[in-house]
Amino acid sequence: MAKQKQLKLGALLHGVGGGTSMWRHPDAQPDASVNFGLYKNWIRKAEEGKFDLIFIADGLYITEKSIPHFLNRFEPITLLSALASVSRHIGLVGTLSTSYSDPFTVARQFASLDQLSGGRAGWNVVTSPLEGSALNYGRNGKTEHPEHDKRYRIATEFLEVTRGLWDSWEDDAFVRNKETGVFFDPAKLHTLNHEGEFFTVKGPLNIARSKQGQPVIFQAGASEVGKNYASKEADAVFTGHERLEDAAAFYKDVKSRAVSYGRRPDEVLIFPGISPIIGRTPEEAELKYREVASLVTIENALDYLGRFFEHHDFSQYPLDEPFPDLGDLGKNSFRSGTDKIKKDAREKGLTLREVALQAATPRGDFIGTPEQVADRIQQWFEGDAADGFMISAGVPRGLEDFVEYVVPILQERGLYRTEYESDTLRGNLGLPVPENRYTKQKALVTPT
Amino acid sequence: MAKQKQLKLGALLHGVGGGTSMWRHPDAQPDASVNFGLYKNWIRKAEEGKFDLIFIADGLYITEKSIPHFLNRFEPITLLSALASVSRHIGLVGTLSTSYSDPFTVARQFASLDQLSGGRAGWNVVTSPLEGSALNYGRNGKTEHPEHDKRYRIATEFLEVTRGLWDSWEDDAFVRNKETGVFFDPAKLHTLNHEGEFFTVKGPLNIARSKQGQPVIFQAGASEVGKNYASKEADAVFTGHERLEDAAAFYKDVKSRAVSYGRRPDEVLIFPGISPIIGRTPEEAELKYREVASLVTIENALDYLGRFFEHHDFSQYPLDEPFPDLGDLGKNSFRSGTDKIKKDAREKGLTLREVALQAATPRGDFIGTPEQVADRIQQWFEGDAADGFMISAGVPRGLEDFVEYVVPILQERGLYRTEYESDTLRGNLGLPVPENRYTKQKALVTPT
Repeated sequence: MAKQKQLKLGALLHGVGGGTSMWRHPDAQPDASVNFGLYKNWIRKAEEGKFDLIFIADGLYITEKSIPHFLNRFEPITLLSALASVSRHIGLVGTLSTSYSDPFTVARQFASLDQLSGGRAGWNVVTSPLEGSALNYGRNGKTEHPEHDKRYRIATEFLEVTRGLWDSWEDDAFVRNKETGVFFDPAKLHTLNHEGEFFTVKGPLNIARSKQGQPVIFQAGASEVGKNYASKEADAVFTGHERLEDAAAFYKDVKSRAVSYGRRPDEVLIFPGISPIIGRTPEEAELKYREVASLVTIENALDYLGRFFEHHDFSQYPLDEPFPDLGDLGKNSFRSGTDKIKKDAREKGLTLREVALQAATPRGDFIGTPEQVADRIQQWFEGDAADGFMISAGVPRGLEDFVEYVVPILQERGLYRTEYESDTLRGNLGLPVPENRYTKQKALVTPT
Repeated sequence: MAKQKQLKLGALLHGVGGGTSMWRHPDAQPDASVNFGLYKNWIRKAEEGKFDLIFIADGLYITEKSIPHFLNRFEPITLLSALASVSRHIGLVGTLSTSYSDPFTVARQFASLDQLSGGRAGWNVVTSPLEGSALNYGRNGKTEHPEHDKRYRIATEFLEVTRGLWDSWEDDAFVRNKETGVFFDPAKLHTLNHEGEFFTVKGPLNIARSKQGQPVIFQAGASEVGKNYASKEADAVFTGHERLEDAAAFYKDVKSRAVSYGRRPDEVLIFPGISPIIGRTPEEAELKYREVASLVTIENALDYLGRFFEHHDFSQYPLDEPFPDLGDLGKNSFRSGTDKIKKDAREKGLTLREVALQAATPRGDFIGTPEQVADRIQQWFEGDAADGFMISAGVPRGLEDFVEYVVPILQERGLYRTEYESDTLRGNLGLPVPENRYTKQKALVTPT
C-alpha cells in the first residue's frame, strides 16, 4: 500500500501573542517577546512534536497604538540563528521585507543561516504592508512607500537576484586540495551580473549553498497580485481562513495558478494558520476561549483594527452603528485583509463593535477536545483545504497542549510523522533540492 | 593596594585564516570558514580563557582572486547570534558596513543580538573599503562607491541614528501590569524623527535596550579621518602595528584625540591585533612560523597584495625590482594600509617580491615560548601601546595554544582576570552603561 499523504506542521512563535491582550492572561509571561529562554522552550517543544518548522513574523514600523508583541520583540534573523544552535531537525523560517532591504544582504543572511543550521532555513518573502515602514527607511530626504503592485514587481526582481546569488557556487566547487593548493575550481564559480529595473548586483555571493540547495521560499500574498506571486515563486504559502470552504477555495485557486505557471500542484504547499484551543471537554475549551476574549477591551479592539487600515483612528465612529464607509483606505497596505473586513461587514450588516471584537479575537474552527481538534484538522487536510497547518497559541501553553494532546492522535491516525524523515527543511517538507542553475545548464549542453 | 590595571583580550575568529595559504597546513581544517562546529569549539576555548570578546570580520565583495576565507564564510550577524546560544559571558562583536546598510535594520539586528545574548553585543563600524562592494548594492541602475571622506560622513550620521533608535525605550518603560492592562508607559517611548543629509528615520525602534544599555561600538579607522571618527565615537579601537613604537604612537594619538573631543582617555580602549605563534622553545616557534610562511607562493602573495589596491594585478611587474609607483591607487579603499605599504617600500627600498611576501605572512612580534609571548604582551601593555589585544591564530590551534599556555602566565602575573567580572560586554571591558538620553534629559530638567 502506498504511504498515506502526510500532514505538515509549523509553529508560529509570537511572544506575548498576536492580539492585544493575551499577555494579561494569568498564565502568560508578559515579557515573552524578548524572553529568549521561552523561545528555546518553544522550539524544543515543537521539535518534540516533530514539527516541520517554526516561523518568526516581522514588521518594520510601530506607533504607541501597536499591539504589545510588535513594540518590543526579537528581530527574525538574529532570533532564528540563535535558535539554530539549540535545535537539530526543525526548519527555521522568518519574515524579511523585499521593500526595505538589499538582495545581497538578504541572500547572505539566509544562506548563512542555512549553512549554520545544516540546511534548515526558510524565508517568508513579504513586501511590507505597513506604509509607515517608509518613514524608517528614508534616504536623501525621500520616504516613499511603493504602491502595492510596484512592491510586487520589486519582490519579483529581488527574489530573482537572491536565487541567482545563492547559485554562485556549484555544489562541488570547493576542492580544498592541500597538495595541489587548489582551493576551488574557478569554472564552478559564477558571477551573476544582474542589471534590472530596481537592482544592479554583480555577485558572486561569498557563501556556498547548504545541503538543501537553497532556503525554502514562503509567501503569504492573498490579493490577486499576491496570489499570482505566491503561485509562481513560493515553495509554501501561509494563509488565514476561518472556514473550511474558504480555505478549500483558496487551496484550489493557488494550486491551479501554480499549474498555469508550469508547476506541479505539490510544488507549492499550503499552510493555513490556526489557533487551536484545547480542553478536556468541549465546555472547558470554550471557557478558555472566552477567558482570552474577555481580556480584550473595546479600545484595544479598535486600535487593533486600525492597524490594518494604516493606523486609522476608529474611536471617532459610533460603536453600535453599521461599520463605517472607509472608501479606499487600506488599499495600499494589507489589501486582501481590509477588503475582506469591508466585505464581511457589508454582507453581514455588522456594527463597528462587532467587527472590531471579531478582528481582535478571531474565534476560529479549532476549539474543543484533542479529538475534536484532530478531527477538524483531518477534515481540512483530507478536504483539500491544507497541506499542513501553522499552529499559533490562542492561549498560553497552546503550543504545549497541541504537541502533548493533538499530535499523538494525528500520529495514531497515520496522518503525521513519528520521526523526522530528514534533517533539512526541504527534506521534511518533501520538496526537492533545486539543482544549481549552472550545473543544470552544463548538463543540458554536454552530450552524455 | 589598588587593583592592578587589567589587560583585555579578544579573539578574531577567522575560519581558514586571514591569509592566502594557512588552509594548506597539515593541521588545518580547510572548510573552517563554514564549519559551525569549529566556531563553537573556538568560542568555548576563548570563554575558557576568560576572553572579553570574539570578533567576526566581514567584507561585501569577492572576486576569484580573493583569499579562501573571504570566498565562502558565515555572515557576522547570523554567526554571532548562533554563537550567543552556546556561550555565557563572552562578548559577540561583528563588522557591519554603514555604506551598504540601513540604520533601522542595523539598530534592530544589533539590539536583538544584545537582548538575546543578555547584553554581550558589539558592533565594529566599518565604511567598506572595497570599491567593488558598490557593484553588489546597485539601485535604479546606479552603483556608486562613496569616496573615503563621504563614507565617514555617512558613518557619522548612521551611528547617530542608530544610537538614537537604541534609546527609543527608557529602561523602565515596560510596566506590564496585568491588573491595570498597562503594558508600557507612553511617556517613556520616544520617537527619533531624524532628518539628516543621508537618512530620514522616524522610529521608534521596536526593541528595547539590553542590560548593557547599548551595544559596544568598535572601530578600526587608521587614516586621519578614520582616527578622528574612532576617537570621537568608538568605545574601542582595533588596530594593527608590528612594532611597539608604532603601536605606542598610535595609542597616544588616539587617546589625545579622544581627550580633545571631551572624553576621558579610558573611555576608548585600544586593541592591537596580534598573531602569536607559540613553541616549547624559541626555535620551535620560529619553525612553526616558517612552516606557515613556506605555504605561500609568490602568486598567492601578489594576489593578496592586489586586494588592498582595488584588486590591482601585480603580476605585470618584475618581481625583483623596486616596488612600482602606483600613483593614487588604493587611496579610496584601505587608505591607511596602502599608504603604509608605499611608504615602507620607498623608505626601505623593497622589491615587489619582498613587499608581497611580507604582506602575505607578516612576521609580527609575538613568536616564541609562552613566557616570551607573555613578556611581549606585558611590555606593550605596560608601555602604553595597548589596553588589550585581539588574538588571531597565526597557525592552526593558535588560539588553543594561547589560552592553554600564555593566559595562565598573564593570570599569574596579575595582569589578567581569572574570573569574569560581569556577564555583559561593557561590564567586562569596564565601560559604563550609557544612560538613556531621554532619562538623562528628564533628570536635568527635574529639580530634585
